Amino acid sequence: MSQYRPFTPQDAIELAKTLPGPFAADANLDCHEIGDGNLNLVFHITDQNSDKSIIIKQALPYAKVVGESWPLSLVRARIEREILQEEYRLCPGMVPEVYHYDDDLALTVMEDLSDHVIMRKGLIEGVSYPLFAQHIGEFMARTLFFTSDLGMDQQLKKEQQGRFINPDQCKITEDLIFDEPYRIAEKNNYDVSIEDEAEALRTDGVLHLEVALLREKFLTHGQALLHGDLHTGSIFVTPESTKVIDPEFAYYGPMGFDVGAVLANLLLNYASLPGWIQDETALRERETLLLNMVRDVWTEFESRFRALWVNDLVDPMAKTPRYQDLYVQQLFRDSIGFAGAKMVRRIVGLAHVADIDTIPNATEREHAQRKALSIGKALIKNNRRLNTIGEVLDIVSTAVSTNKA
Amino acid sequence: MSQYRPFTPQDAIELAKTLPGPFAADANLDCHEIGDGNLNLVFHITDQNSDKSIIIKQALPYAKVVGESWPLSLVRARIEREILQEEYRLCPGMVPEVYHYDDDLALTVMEDLSDHVIMRKGLIEGVSYPLFAQHIGEFMARTLFFTSDLGMDQQLKKEQQGRFINPDQCKITEDLIFDEPYRIAEKNNYDVSIEDEAEALRTDGVLHLEVALLREKFLTHGQALLHGDLHTGSIFVTPESTKVIDPEFAYYGPMGFDVGAVLANLLLNYASLPGWIQDETALRERETLLLNMVRDVWTEFESRFRALWVNDLVDPMAKTPRYQDLYVQQLFRDSIGFAGAKMVRRIVGLAHVADIDTIPNATEREHAQRKALSIGKALIKNNRRLNTIGEVLDIVSTAVSTNKA
Repeated sequence: MSQYRPFTPQDAIELAKTLPGPFAADANLDCHEIGDGNLNLVFHITDQNSDKSIIIKQALPYAKVVGESWPLSLVRARIEREILQEEYRLCPGMVPEVYHYDDDLALTVMEDLSDHVIMRKGLIEGVSYPLFAQHIGEFMARTLFFTSDLGMDQQLKKEQQGRFINPDQCKITEDLIFDEPYRIAEKNNYDVSIEDEAEALRTDGVLHLEVALLREKFLTHGQALLHGDLHTGSIFVTPESTKVIDPEFAYYGPMGFDVGAVLANLLLNYASLPGWIQDETALRERETLLLNMVRDVWTEFESRFRALWVNDLVDPMAKTPRYQDLYVQQLFRDSIGFAGAKMVRRIVGLAHVADIDTIPNATEREHAQRKALSIGKALIKNNRRLNTIGEVLDIVSTAVSTNKA
Repeated sequence: MSQYRPFTPQDAIELAKTLPGPFAADANLDCHEIGDGNLNLVFHITDQNSDKSIIIKQALPYAKVVGESWPLSLVRARIEREILQEEYRLCPGMVPEVYHYDDDLALTVMEDLSDHVIMRKGLIEGVSYPLFAQHIGEFMARTLFFTSDLGMDQQLKKEQQGRFINPDQCKITEDLIFDEPYRIAEKNNYDVSIEDEAEALRTDGVLHLEVALLREKFLTHGQALLHGDLHTGSIFVTPESTKVIDPEFAYYGPMGFDVGAVLANLLLNYASLPGWIQDETALRERETLLLNMVRDVWTEFESRFRALWVNDLVDPMAKTPRYQDLYVQQLFRDSIGFAGAKMVRRIVGLAHVADIDTIPNATEREHAQRKALSIGKALIKNNRRLNTIGEVLDIVSTAVSTNKA
């Protein structure tokens, strides 16, 4: 049994040399630590004499946030490794392949995806990903369906749920998404220019009620094995390929939390666009493209999820007429509510998104923040009565124009 | 570490002699196996020279049902012992005290409650339990509240949920309550005289949809640590005292499943009354008493649960105005739906209740079965639109009179 210690690049190279494949015994390996250093070390190991490369990711026993240290269980490394393997089984080629792991060292050796770019960066740069909605729809439909009571043995699901109890990571979500943005909290983080917006969040009882209901779902609804942090910074893309990474927040929760994460991050990018594109026509085109992606992510997900229900259902009671429609309706509403909560927290909470934070012009940045909050609040407040993605897009337009007025 | 073997009465006596307290070293102990032998051995050990006595309960690695053997994990013995200790901590005096346990032998040594009677028996004999609603209201309010995200640390709750994963026992519930009564199934068990009722259950799409939704809640909604089998055969009573036993079905599920179990079993006894009481006036009085108990169990539970919310809430987000009302409304609806499902399964499913099955007159017995089904179906079909226990009692009256017509 290994004893935990944080790796140095030299440790990473030595481990890489002992692994069967990919490197020759006498290979000259380079190693760079490329993580952001907040939660994990990420070593990128390349061979000077071949195009072979690997990633070694190691969990740190703390998170660096607002200058202090927040203890975190290393169990998340085992959880991340196990769910990567489970996702790979369900969606081959859509997550990095795991080559090796050591749970005591809290590390995983995996496929290097550096031929892809982080989707958030690609979106900010204006790249188009015409296959993304299909890919992510497929990923979410398969990972959520086949880990739920709909698509797997219901007793094995319970055992699996027990293996993915992930309290430390869930606590981060519970605090940062479902609590702190709605009160005065030390970790909140926003420009003084939107103090009026932050105060409005703290005093809006209608909003608080909906957030409390969403929080309860996150705390209690063990529907499927979630990725748990499915934003565009956890997705590597090329125009042809989509790879999901970093599932260390995985646990059994409400399906809509994953779907909502994708929708929220596309809408955050949408809200940022006037800060990046001056030309009016180009701006309108890109906005339309982003809203079409929002629509397509839902419809691609829904059609695949419903197809799995028809073909791969293991629970005979779920064949009951109208049950699928009620189930999908609730899943849709949850997704919209969670999307709203994720937008709000990215403006006033601890962790922001580069789409908005790096807008060069301060006035445009503030506009984007207000627009994102306006959309986010409208999604949260309306989630329990929405039925179609078209209604959501109408709400986005209304929230945006109200915001302007 | 002990090795599992089923105990004989002699084994039980020998273990009892080694325990510190309650018996003298030279005590003359008697032992009778008093379990029904389906799932567990229950040894009642008494001292010929004192009034001291204990119970030793040992789980069997199978269930005897319909003449065959159904393998069951012994883990349930550890789960039962742990939840007894947890319930004792939360409600001292309302469950048997655990004196000793051996998880490898799957046995627990506990307080003897033979000065109490099984509540189902007491109810059939016409005894009144004027304190029962307060007692069980207190028991359910405290055990459900303090094991939920409302009343305990939300991260410790997740760890606890992991310890109470109980697939084998849940499978029994999922099959016997939420599946088999609604289709042709080998384990179903009912008189040919009500084949029309059984067929109606199999073909009622409206009913199936509601059962599918209740089943989903049972499968996914990890709201609180449930007793999991809280019928009147799991409750020991005297007119002054209430003790809950046999929590081997414990797991993290929807609170309404426990509340509904109590309501269902009172209503099953209510439906049986014309089979036991000939005198019209006495019958009406007893029926009123039972319906008042149904009303009181809910109101006593609700008022205590709301008081705990005011005084012992750990989740600040749950203080949001109107959230408590929405939460309690949903809990009420769940309770009524589960109550209905539990009534139906006790008529056509594998396991019945003596209240109805032992009615001497066959015609009266059939009337009681039809009445119970009529009430059960009405509760299931209306659960999602009900708001008050008064409406439930109206539905009971309507179901009964429709049944008669």
